[in-house]
Amino acid sequence: MAHIHVPEGVPGIRSLVMYRPDTGQHLYALAQALLRNESPLSEAERELIATFVSALNDCNFCAGSHAAAARFLFGQDKDLVDQVIADYQTAPISDKLKALLTIARHVQQDARTVSDELVAEARRQGATDRDIHDTVLIAATFCMFNRYVDGLATLTPDPSAYEAMGERMGTVGYVMPSAPVPIDNS
Amino acid sequence: MAHIHVPEGVPGIRSLVMYRPDTGQHLYALAQALLRNESPLSEAERELIATFVSALNDCNFCAGSHAAAARFLFGQDKDLVDQVIADYQTAPISDKLKALLTIARHVQQDARTVSDELVAEARRQGATDRDIHDTVLIAATFCMFNRYVDGLATLTPDPSAYEAMGERMGTVGYVMPSAPVPIDNS
Repeated sequence: MAHIHVPEGVPGIRSLVMYRPDTGQHLYALAQALLRNESPLSEAERELIATFVSALNDCNFCAGSHAAAARFLFGQDKDLVDQVIADYQTAPISDKLKALLTIARHVQQDARTVSDELVAEARRQGATDRDIHDTVLIAATFCMFNRYVDGLATLTPDPSAYEAMGERMGTVGYVMPSAPVPIDNS
Repeated sequence: MAHIHVPEGVPGIRSLVMYRPDTGQHLYALAQALLRNESPLSEAERELIATFVSALNDCNFCAGSHAAAARFLFGQDKDLVDQVIADYQTAPISDKLKALLTIARHVQQDARTVSDELVAEARRQGATDRDIHDTVLIAATFCMFNRYVDGLATLTPDPSAYEAMGERMGTVGYVMPSAPVPIDNS
């Protein structure tokens, strides 16, 4: 059970943005801009970085839902997601994406350890300023979402719920849930 | 020097929202709603939680600037900020705020460790759902801002710059910087 009175049966972040929409609207708008606006990283790659960081933070809701979104967006390469989570260094992804995932891992652990060397290695593999920027902001943002969702002990749904959720995230994107049911905000 | 080409001489988060305003606008809007909209926690208390978490993450820019904002907002109690950073358990703050700072500390370290017991203790000291929610979201949000600022190695200004910055944050709030100077976004 969640630590505060959020709408019953509503999982993860969704229950929290319904609880406090005046902050929630900006969280959804940030996710939409960061994961869906123009970027040198594809939507699938950005969902993969979000999944990778959420898995490092052991946030089952965020890892499960964004893995499903990444699988939906990768299409026939959907096994990639599990390979990256298991061991991204041996997964069949580009060396550029591997270097960016290494930066994401450092952001997750201690962002001050993102060194000139790690950034230079990403550039050698073809990363631009925007690749590096977007990777760091996605990693930082999911360190927030993961903590928000788990710090308030929100509902983690049954694993069977994620596939439909991922398809919605991959098509509709991040749209604020409609008007919340009346709840006790005490 | 920052890892990417941001406007020169502009410190911390400010240089990053100028670099990518389409995500930056939502970050500033989130900070404004979370730290300035209505809450059972005063603006000074919320800036104190932001400072506390930023100090735990060793983010000098965020800790320095939000400490200055908290000092400005506390007015004559400005020494409180340093006492809380040094040891919040012995600082002259309410038991409710101590219990909330303990929750914030757990969010910063591993949000899954925010236990029913920690939440029950905060409630015993008078915390409501909104106190607990806002504390967790502030702690989570600063785990993002700290990582964004340090993961891209943005400029940390001279300590003498913070007092004016804190006064602006305490009066004007969080407003997107005006149009960025032309920069190379490559």
